[in-house]
Amino acid sequence: MLLVQKFGGSSVATMDHIERVAAKVQSVCQRGDAVVVVVSAMGDSTDALVSMAKMANPDLPGREMDALLATGEIQTTALLAMTLCRLGLMARSFTGRDAGITTDRHHRRAHILSVDPIRLRQALDQGIIPVVAGFQGVDDQGNVTTLGRGGSDLTAIALAGALKADRCEIFSDVAGVFTADPRVVPDAVPIDHLSYDEMVELASQGAQVLQTRAVEYARENRVVIHARSTFHDAEGTRIVDKNLDNPSVTAVAMAKNIAKIGLVGVPDAPGVAAHLFSRLSARSIDVDLVIQSLSHEKLNDIAFTVSTEDLLQAERIAREALVELKGQGLVVDQMVAKIAAVGSGMLGRPGVAARFFQALAEADVNIQMIGTSEIKISCIVSRQDAERALGALHQAFGLAAVHSDE
Amino acid sequence: MLLVQKFGGSSVATMDHIERVAAKVQSVCQRGDAVVVVVSAMGDSTDALVSMAKMANPDLPGREMDALLATGEIQTTALLAMTLCRLGLMARSFTGRDAGITTDRHHRRAHILSVDPIRLRQALDQGIIPVVAGFQGVDDQGNVTTLGRGGSDLTAIALAGALKADRCEIFSDVAGVFTADPRVVPDAVPIDHLSYDEMVELASQGAQVLQTRAVEYARENRVVIHARSTFHDAEGTRIVDKNLDNPSVTAVAMAKNIAKIGLVGVPDAPGVAAHLFSRLSARSIDVDLVIQSLSHEKLNDIAFTVSTEDLLQAERIAREALVELKGQGLVVDQMVAKIAAVGSGMLGRPGVAARFFQALAEADVNIQMIGTSEIKISCIVSRQDAERALGALHQAFGLAAVHSDE
Repeated sequence: MLLVQKFGGSSVATMDHIERVAAKVQSVCQRGDAVVVVVSAMGDSTDALVSMAKMANPDLPGREMDALLATGEIQTTALLAMTLCRLGLMARSFTGRDAGITTDRHHRRAHILSVDPIRLRQALDQGIIPVVAGFQGVDDQGNVTTLGRGGSDLTAIALAGALKADRCEIFSDVAGVFTADPRVVPDAVPIDHLSYDEMVELASQGAQVLQTRAVEYARENRVVIHARSTFHDAEGTRIVDKNLDNPSVTAVAMAKNIAKIGLVGVPDAPGVAAHLFSRLSARSIDVDLVIQSLSHEKLNDIAFTVSTEDLLQAERIAREALVELKGQGLVVDQMVAKIAAVGSGMLGRPGVAARFFQALAEADVNIQMIGTSEIKISCIVSRQDAERALGALHQAFGLAAVHSDE
Repeated sequence: MLLVQKFGGSSVATMDHIERVAAKVQSVCQRGDAVVVVVSAMGDSTDALVSMAKMANPDLPGREMDALLATGEIQTTALLAMTLCRLGLMARSFTGRDAGITTDRHHRRAHILSVDPIRLRQALDQGIIPVVAGFQGVDDQGNVTTLGRGGSDLTAIALAGALKADRCEIFSDVAGVFTADPRVVPDAVPIDHLSYDEMVELASQGAQVLQTRAVEYARENRVVIHARSTFHDAEGTRIVDKNLDNPSVTAVAMAKNIAKIGLVGVPDAPGVAAHLFSRLSARSIDVDLVIQSLSHEKLNDIAFTVSTEDLLQAERIAREALVELKGQGLVVDQMVAKIAAVGSGMLGRPGVAARFFQALAEADVNIQMIGTSEIKISCIVSRQDAERALGALHQAFGLAAVHSDE
């Protein structure tokens, strides 16, 4: 069997942690399986690099940021490979370039264009454990690129796809995907199985276990994901390609890294929203929820949410658009959060939305914006209401009970 | 004019230092010159990586050490390039690989095989300042290699040669090459001009301003070197390819990172020394001074010195040789130092050696081993005598006086 195992930053934060990861990899080898290891940068080493970069240049130029940040993962690969060698295993470090990961030229959030892991295959054929730097690739010019927050998940899943691995194990400091963030909702329980669609929605709604794009990539390439804890032997969560007999709502999620931008009093003419959103999309800024409301005298208010990471850039674009459209004002609100309920069992059960809003009303939570998909309901609430709202939904959909029965 | 400017670790130790380096580079551009910048890792960041690596694997496997250590220089290039961009200049970071530096496969101390800086030329043609990671290259398999201690000097000089730069400026925290280490001999003075041969001898005798191999490379490729301080505007030292009207002794130097290994009572047969030294050389261990003495009953004592960096490995090899040769014992002495006097004016002036040994005798310094070249006299002394010996030689050859006249 061939496994890809990915270990996140908190799993390789210190040399002691790396030692523990090496022991885990060794046990895979001892039972006769082959393994490719993908690692993130150690602990908060990336944050240290970012703060130096901010001093160098507050604009954080993309190409140089990628060159800088990619070094963190490379350091981990070398240290883990050395540790594995000390344990008597054959291991070798590989950068994203070495692993054959080619991306587009979009620095900081590059998309993988192709994966040609010929050097990893050669290593595997020789019984060598490849230890690959996550989060990075190179563009067609040979410049180093990075894959965005959580990009090491994508590296692991893309390699698992290209190498036709039997499974991609994503190790982190939590024991898989829970019905809600257990730090916020104490009676949250782990979920055994999720469909790709559910996991994509959960990841994009703020569950930080897996990167959204990584799960989408896994769905497209039929990579079996197993999310589990580095530090406990719990079963974790398997993300699989089949219809699951899940309850109407599988999990609830909360994201606080959300900001709301409102354009007040812009003309109610065709193309106004398109003008704004095409500009945002040209800068690769993901707009999540959108609300458009007629205020008065044929003037519209348009509000949308973005990740706080993108706030500065989005605000600049919105302000330019406001001036061109001769709008009346711009409102930016960072004190918001997004709450979502996700479940493939939601399909064709109209009562779910009613129960969602009922629960929030009973918890005295005011709803600012709403968004839905076939298997998700999400809404923007005041940040101070967010944790109360999450607990109320977890309770209302009986999530602790449902899963603890299993 | 095209310059290559190299800034060492202490010149880029903090973001404030990098800021200052950026200002220096900017002033070169403002006067209309083109520049390629080569940088080392920030301050003692390499030491931090080495101590983590020792925890991972005390054997410090070469390939992984090189992958690990090369990240330090890359981080500096990205941070400096970002800073230059903030100042309104166009700048771009390049790894050793990007700069076209190909080496042999000898990890930790690779030799440069070829330099093909096509990407740097393209950048220069577009008015972009290339900021290149020193100390590193790639072998023919694409593995990252490093060029040994002080290897960034070699990177800068090799690029200056390949780009036919007008000059290679080596910036460090000292204002060029002095008649002796000013921290040890307070009246040491800077030297204006040195020949390549003198600089090679001085570097290999312990003057830490420039890497020996870098100066040898400059000599072979006729690269003009200018060693100067990052922090002061002093003139520094120019290393040039011509006969200089230098005094008999130009400078004295001291190296403390020296250890002496002695094999006691080995057979006085042909090939015994060759056997030992060929083994050391196969491991790329430089042997400096050698002394062979007939002790008694056709048994020899052989003693040699190595860098303390190589001591563990050299000791292991010597012990193996001792067993095979049925020698009587092994002596290792780390409490030694090397003292040297260098000067191209020494040629054909027989009084120099006499004055050298006279000065040490008057300072009550016992001499353990002696080595000479046409323009150098060096000897091994007890480490506790080293600084006194250096001062005595500096005085005896009137070095403070000679240069302060200029």
